[in-house]
Amino acid sequence: MKAYAFLKNTPKTTTPRGKTMMLDKGLGLNETEDLLATAGDYLDYAKFGWGTAATMDRELIEKKTAMYREAGVIPYPGGTLLEVALLNGQFSEFLKETQALGFGGVEVSDGSTNISASNRKQVIQQAKDAGLFVISEVGKKDPKLDHKLSIHERLMQIQTDLRNGANYVIIEAREAGKNIGIYDADGNIIENELQELAKGGTDRLIFEAPLKSQQVALIRQFGVGINLGNIASNEVTALETLRRGLRGDTVGQL
Amino acid sequence: MKAYAFLKNTPKTTTPRGKTMMLDKGLGLNETEDLLATAGDYLDYAKFGWGTAATMDRELIEKKTAMYREAGVIPYPGGTLLEVALLNGQFSEFLKETQALGFGGVEVSDGSTNISASNRKQVIQQAKDAGLFVISEVGKKDPKLDHKLSIHERLMQIQTDLRNGANYVIIEAREAGKNIGIYDADGNIIENELQELAKGGTDRLIFEAPLKSQQVALIRQFGVGINLGNIASNEVTALETLRRGLRGDTVGQL
Amino acid sequence: MKAYAFLKNTPKTTTPRGKTMMLDKGLGLNETEDLLATAGDYLDYAKFGWGTAATMDRELIEKKTAMYREAGVIPYPGGTLLEVALLNGQFSEFLKETQALGFGGVEVSDGSTNISASNRKQVIQQAKDAGLFVISEVGKKDPKLDHKLSIHERLMQIQTDLRNGANYVIIEAREAGKNIGIYDADGNIIENELQELAKGGTDRLIFEAPLKSQQVALIRQFGVGINLGNIASNEVTALETLRRGLRGDTVGQL
Repeated sequence: MKAYAFLKNTPKTTTPRGKTMMLDKGLGLNETEDLLATAGDYLDYAKFGWGTAATMDRELIEKKTAMYREAGVIPYPGGTLLEVALLNGQFSEFLKETQALGFGGVEVSDGSTNISASNRKQVIQQAKDAGLFVISEVGKKDPKLDHKLSIHERLMQIQTDLRNGANYVIIEAREAGKNIGIYDADGNIIENELQELAKGGTDRLIFEAPLKSQQVALIRQFGVGINLGNIASNEVTALETLRRGLRGDTVGQL
Repeated sequence: MKAYAFLKNTPKTTTPRGKTMMLDKGLGLNETEDLLATAGDYLDYAKFGWGTAATMDRELIEKKTAMYREAGVIPYPGGTLLEVALLNGQFSEFLKETQALGFGGVEVSDGSTNISASNRKQVIQQAKDAGLFVISEVGKKDPKLDHKLSIHERLMQIQTDLRNGANYVIIEAREAGKNIGIYDADGNIIENELQELAKGGTDRLIFEAPLKSQQVALIRQFGVGINLGNIASNEVTALETLRRGLRGDTVGQL
Repeated sequence: MKAYAFLKNTPKTTTPRGKTMMLDKGLGLNETEDLLATAGDYLDYAKFGWGTAATMDRELIEKKTAMYREAGVIPYPGGTLLEVALLNGQFSEFLKETQALGFGGVEVSDGSTNISASNRKQVIQQAKDAGLFVISEVGKKDPKLDHKLSIHERLMQIQTDLRNGANYVIIEAREAGKNIGIYDADGNIIENELQELAKGGTDRLIFEAPLKSQQVALIRQFGVGINLGNIASNEVTALETLRRGLRGDTVGQL
């Protein structure tokens, strides 16, 4: 039973909580154990950021993915790793290794490379056919390139990815959350861009929102059901308190 | 025995160190074990930030509070949780659960809600009567509301809380330490506000000082005896080195 | 075997990786175990920041240094601690204790104090004679004093230290990496200062580069062989991905 379970405040009891995707930058087993014991109930997806998975022993990765899966969390390698594999013409080996390591999903992105529309479609479908959960990502890692993507292009990409089988589409914001996607150089939301993106609904979108101010703004605007991503591993509990109105920023506001 | 115990430098040997209150944002048991083994000797109070305690299993909280108490640290739930309980008319259940979970104190604040003077007095006294250590807090979580609090009002609140039985009064600065209380938007101390607040003495005050620059400024100004709060869990050791003149910012200056 | 070992991308396979020096601000044993299991292969030196070692039990320090050494990492206490010992006239006790605690090196700096050229030479040589690995540091902790050091003076100091037996010379940037050494107030590289410093080669230099943008800039400019220091303990894996072209900032650029 949870502590203070008698408290009558929480919106969580009536509204389904949005999905939470966490950025795992290379946690060790003790840290993963701590994370899951404290916040595992509030975690849906654990992304092994960019190519970090490829720097570690297979055994270690296998132990971690097993721990996540046992806690009901889907672990998946970062989109950059998939991009590098594609660039090398090693996608089928990548898929095989991803599954062998115990990952339950992949992220299909073109943040650091260019991928043709037909190739992107094929990659999403191959991953789905392999039984993997697929999250696609819209946005470029380089702010200069990212700014060139119009809202219209982003919306088209989202629609296409979902039609091709992606389970969710992520709106890129990187680890820092500044000068990219829906955020300006200070990390504040560019309101009209957000509105345009959200027009078609937010159920299948995951907004990367690494900064607390971004999490607060999105929860206040869309409610506790909004899906949020790139949450730092030591902020998953804090995010849950925001979603429940148990932190100053959202007390009595949900 | 401590390493390098022969070193002759430390002001700590002659002056009693100020109290250190740490912000625990949801540490797991491995992390808590690490914290106490490395820095437990320099820690006095561990605040389970805002409502984080209410997101975790009772068993986990009980294990953590036991670990803290065994290390001589008083653990207590964040003031926001108490405020939510008050708002719900569930204060007596809150007190009972707080003690059942092994916490040794409470924080009485009105950072996110409004509490009448008589209610605040009653809450402090009930907590004291229950045998709990009481830290009250002065300040609002929302910078706009916080700026409306005059120094005079803060001083009155401090005096009233102490008279009503609070062991210490905390000066609010949140986790980020900017644009709130005695800090400006860059986190620098607003010198005249600090001077006014400190006029009546600082023995019973705890200044939240999450940023290193704030810790350095307060230690240089008031000495190692100053009480500091909202220290990040991975900065308790660093703060101790500041207090002993073992970091560049304070070497030879204490 | 590493995960995704089949990937053809990595520059690491052809170029020797530069040295990585990490800042250990007081990790506990569980955290150290996690660090070494995840990133121990990419770590060369672990600096126990400034005087943190002197706040902990000897037993704990001994266990940590043993863990580092077993993983092939050289642990050493921060330069500030050596400076305090020198200031107190306790250098020989410092050397003895440093070795007794299992450290494999020392850092010889004058960041917080003034040390005469002859004394600095003697200290480097005594440490070398004692069998310790010696890293000297050039730069002042206080930005005002640091700005007074000309590039010419820095270059002379580097040459002198190497001639006196230092294994490497570190270019100071502190934990924050701003307004110090080769970085401006925003943490950006001051390009002409860097060029001047690098003129004589970078093989024996370690650039403190706590910010990701600094790591990216230095790796892009000098390649994966550049030696980097003051890497945060939870960023060692991320740095390795930068060096291998497995993060957006360096994919396809090495």
